[in-house]
Amino acid sequence: MNSSIPARETIIATGERIARHIHRTPVMHSASIDGLIGATVFFKCENFQKVGAFKIRGALNAASLLLADDRARGLATHSSGNHAQAVALAARIFGVAAHIVMPRNAPRIKRAAVEGYGARVIESGPLQSDREATVRQVLEETGAAFIHPYDDDRVIEGQATVAMELFQQTMSEEPLHALLAPVGGGGLMSGSCFATRAFSPGTVLIGCEPAGADDAARSLAAGRRLENDAVDTIADGLRTNLSDRTFAILREHLREIITVTDEEIGSALRMVFERLKIVIEPSAAVPLAALIQQRERFAGKRVGIILSGGNIDLGVFPFSGYESPAG
Amino acid sequence: MNSSIPARETIIATGERIARHIHRTPVMHSASIDGLIGATVFFKCENFQKVGAFKIRGALNAASLLLADDRARGLATHSSGNHAQAVALAARIFGVAAHIVMPRNAPRIKRAAVEGYGARVIESGPLQSDREATVRQVLEETGAAFIHPYDDDRVIEGQATVAMELFQQTMSEEPLHALLAPVGGGGLMSGSCFATRAFSPGTVLIGCEPAGADDAARSLAAGRRLENDAVDTIADGLRTNLSDRTFAILREHLREIITVTDEEIGSALRMVFERLKIVIEPSAAVPLAALIQQRERFAGKRVGIILSGGNIDLGVFPFSGYESPAG
Repeated sequence: MNSSIPARETIIATGERIARHIHRTPVMHSASIDGLIGATVFFKCENFQKVGAFKIRGALNAASLLLADDRARGLATHSSGNHAQAVALAARIFGVAAHIVMPRNAPRIKRAAVEGYGARVIESGPLQSDREATVRQVLEETGAAFIHPYDDDRVIEGQATVAMELFQQTMSEEPLHALLAPVGGGGLMSGSCFATRAFSPGTVLIGCEPAGADDAARSLAAGRRLENDAVDTIADGLRTNLSDRTFAILREHLREIITVTDEEIGSALRMVFERLKIVIEPSAAVPLAALIQQRERFAGKRVGIILSGGNIDLGVFPFSGYESPAG
Repeated sequence: MNSSIPARETIIATGERIARHIHRTPVMHSASIDGLIGATVFFKCENFQKVGAFKIRGALNAASLLLADDRARGLATHSSGNHAQAVALAARIFGVAAHIVMPRNAPRIKRAAVEGYGARVIESGPLQSDREATVRQVLEETGAAFIHPYDDDRVIEGQATVAMELFQQTMSEEPLHALLAPVGGGGLMSGSCFATRAFSPGTVLIGCEPAGADDAARSLAAGRRLENDAVDTIADGLRTNLSDRTFAILREHLREIITVTDEEIGSALRMVFERLKIVIEPSAAVPLAALIQQRERFAGKRVGIILSGGNIDLGVFPFSGYESPAG
């Protein structure tokens, strides 16, 4: 599959298209984290974004680019995660219906959040094939437009605005030496590839993935798309596989993926809570975990990190099991 | 005891004196919290302050106002909380020694944080009288200047800059209807009294206290200073008693204290984590708990809340025991 590479102007126009409805999230910096890691680290805080994650950028861009008549028949997707809330909010912004297919066993709190945006939740069986069958039925019945969480050029262009903003917000004499972002289905990573190429080609882009769902790292190494047989990671937002589209983009533009253990993710998560005093979800801690793992090579450098979201279930996450790496 | 009321110019000058070394912390606002509470709520985020709490303001102001020769002999205090780190950092800023008396049973992590600022930690017995005896000995041996956590006019003037900034940052046609701040030893509350009088006299100032350490509420009701016999609250920063000085200020300037249960504090804490996506300590959730408890009377109003600090022990706090009031 040959995705076209969006030009600089395309990403800028995307940013302008969605700007009215989203936050330009802040970039945070902590002298104490810099001291611990030995680099100058800039955190792009998408945990403060609408719906608590970057996902609203892609969903809203896709919804914006629909013809008005098509959009009027509503938006649909299947997701139990942040993309579900993103499509629900995008639909509300345009005043159209949202049909969200969620597995029957999805957490009640996630379902409530989606319904809180006025969306209709349709239950499916727990398997990926169940979800897909249910969403096909919904599309047939409603004529709604399907918005995939990552296998969609419009979604990827929306996600590209995260890295674009981070580059704009950290501009100085010297570009960022490296940008670290998480890899799940590859939407944010594909967008980061395009934004880096367009706005900061001297920056080394690095993907970061949990060892327990490392399909992207294995796929890049093998030169063909591989899937996860089983996933085992606390980074619940990164358990999905690349699609053919995102694999093709990553193979062309991404040189490296660092994988990290759940223990490393937990330590990084704790560092963010303790030092930045902000709430992020486990998936969002993966790039910092990678930076900590390989901090020698980043010594003295300016490094950007995308904190992708903040929707953590506070009741179940076992903080006590993780020690801060600083002791 | 008759504390003089600092003039508007005094608080402004205090702010300028300490500005170079502290953060002008942001004021946050959340449409979803506004929707849940039915008021427009502005959060002054001292969890992002140096040392993770407002305490650096008072400690640094007190240190700044010492004669240089006196300061050169070092700073001393007794504290197992945020004030210990504040005095340690103030000493480091001036390049002088810090002697911090901490009870032998203080958490290792708090001791490490104080030592991280280069301070000397001196262990004492666990009782208040043990700490005071040990600090007297330290003062005799070193000639260091003692900085009390709240029973000190210079400290109170430093804490007054929190509310001053909040008023400046929320200025519009209409002043804040109410300002809610926590009451522990009364330093922040006394400073808030002075700042409200000086900068926003039309704002209703309300103290907020845990029911399990309600000496201030009982003292104001009785018209004389009463102490806590036993304290029982998760709001560990608010377990202290008023001093004669802070009681006199509160009796003169504060009309009302709202007390809240630990369950209400836990729910408010959870709301801040889930909706604002920031980390605060239990004591900092007390004013929001009070606002939620009495939200009918604040309906449609503009309300300021001081989030006093963010130094929560993530390993032990039982989030799972508290349900978000929104369900």
